[in-house]
Amino acid sequence: MPADTFTGWMTAIQQQTEQTLAALLPAEGAHPRALHEAMRYSTLGGGKRVRPLLVFAAGEAAGGAPETLAPLAAAVECVHVYSLIHDDLPCMDDDVLRRGKPTCHVAYGEATALLAGDALQTLAFDIVSRPLAGVAPARQLMMAGTLARAAGHAGMAGGQAIDLAAVGQSLELPELEYMHLMKTGALIRASVGLGALAGDIDDEARACLDHFAKCMGLAFQVVDDVLDVDADSQALGKTAGKDAAHDKPTYVSLLGLARAREFARELYDDAIRAVEPFGADARRLRELADYIVERSF
Amino acid sequence: MPADTFTGWMTAIQQQTEQTLAALLPAEGAHPRALHEAMRYSTLGGGKRVRPLLVFAAGEAAGGAPETLAPLAAAVECVHVYSLIHDDLPCMDDDVLRRGKPTCHVAYGEATALLAGDALQTLAFDIVSRPLAGVAPARQLMMAGTLARAAGHAGMAGGQAIDLAAVGQSLELPELEYMHLMKTGALIRASVGLGALAGDIDDEARACLDHFAKCMGLAFQVVDDVLDVDADSQALGKTAGKDAAHDKPTYVSLLGLARAREFARELYDDAIRAVEPFGADARRLRELADYIVERSF
Repeated sequence: MPADTFTGWMTAIQQQTEQTLAALLPAEGAHPRALHEAMRYSTLGGGKRVRPLLVFAAGEAAGGAPETLAPLAAAVECVHVYSLIHDDLPCMDDDVLRRGKPTCHVAYGEATALLAGDALQTLAFDIVSRPLAGVAPARQLMMAGTLARAAGHAGMAGGQAIDLAAVGQSLELPELEYMHLMKTGALIRASVGLGALAGDIDDEARACLDHFAKCMGLAFQVVDDVLDVDADSQALGKTAGKDAAHDKPTYVSLLGLARAREFARELYDDAIRAVEPFGADARRLRELADYIVERSF
Repeated sequence: MPADTFTGWMTAIQQQTEQTLAALLPAEGAHPRALHEAMRYSTLGGGKRVRPLLVFAAGEAAGGAPETLAPLAAAVECVHVYSLIHDDLPCMDDDVLRRGKPTCHVAYGEATALLAGDALQTLAFDIVSRPLAGVAPARQLMMAGTLARAAGHAGMAGGQAIDLAAVGQSLELPELEYMHLMKTGALIRASVGLGALAGDIDDEARACLDHFAKCMGLAFQVVDDVLDVDADSQALGKTAGKDAAHDKPTYVSLLGLARAREFARELYDDAIRAVEPFGADARRLRELADYIVERSF
């Protein structure tokens, strides 16, 4: 498959991300074995790598070098995987299936899964703190801060907490949107933000990329809600219908299936408009937006 | 109490750490309320702040400015508190009492405690990524990396995993030492390391401070094991005798009480020798070493 096609590009980034993660994770068989195996088990060999793809696509739009983008993409993915492991724990969503295989705590026990998630978060900040080719240290500190704010109490973890409190509650649409902007949106924006910081573009251009990311972060969630209703477990690689089963509000439960699909399309259009100034440099971002939204069409 | 005495100095640092943490933590009542309350509940109003004290004592030895040391001390404490919250969870040590009050999951539920720990770790890296007065960005990246490596799979989290696997096992002394060097020692070394990086001393001098920290990290654990046997719950502020109850190997179970006390003293002597080159500048480090070890004498 030629790397010039979107599928070729995507496959290349996914393979590169797998290799980078495999090299950055603790070695197989290294002591303490169970922790390190659990970290590798949950991180390697699966996932669409949407966040790494966004880091690279935004990085290409901003003119960042691939060797700069690779560790940043790996760091974001570590944060994402840590959040999945902790999300799946019995005290949270209590999920047994993830990316088509048993969740981390099912495979390794709760305590090891807890620690594997903890250590993956730490690894992300270890990675973004290492000397990064072609990036000034001050710029790199901005990257680390961007990732930390996206992952923390005002971002992903905060969104999780809101989600938790929403079970069995009748959330209104603005509250649902706020929750998702934090829970999944923050890390998606950080992915694009890290890619943007790897290049040399001005604040206005970075704001355009951020608006793209904000729209696509929401669209991603809307599509997820649509898929959760549509798909069976096999296609999705995780337990389908789980949000409805947990009595969680979703875009589909609030808007209905047809309007939810339409909303995803509107967000997509908004995102595409935001990156118009980048012209051909935003090609991968546009293709990625297609890919994310077309999962549901 | 004059600030020139050790007790005065210690009280001043503890108060400053409390204030810095209170300002850096998410505001009380801010949305999502339960998460933010849980983060504040576990972080504020308690604890000896041994790690912040070490940051300041090492920082004074290395010539670091107090305004540089304060956020670093707060960041290390956030990592420490996150580890306590996760440690206390039912799937780990299942503890109900910490710092004299109900543990985080007892007060806020398991899911919120999990997220509070997660978000406190993130906050630590948020803090060390913010512009730091008088510190070059490249130096600050070293600080972030030092903290990350100490907290992660090759440090604290790895030590936890070894500890977990050791329940009911007959650990030999070298294995016990290796576990503690990672579990508690890594973060204590990072505390001293961050303080050292805040000043302007050469690699050799930093290595002396690191040796001090390595010895005191182990001494701290040996003293903890001694106290665990000696103390009642009230004096310790946590459930006493829990290691024995969980059938965990300790320095006391391997060495006996008298030899464990002696070992702590040997480590103390080694630590004190390591900071001799610093002369009077190491005053607070020496006093802190006394304070840590004398808990058991």
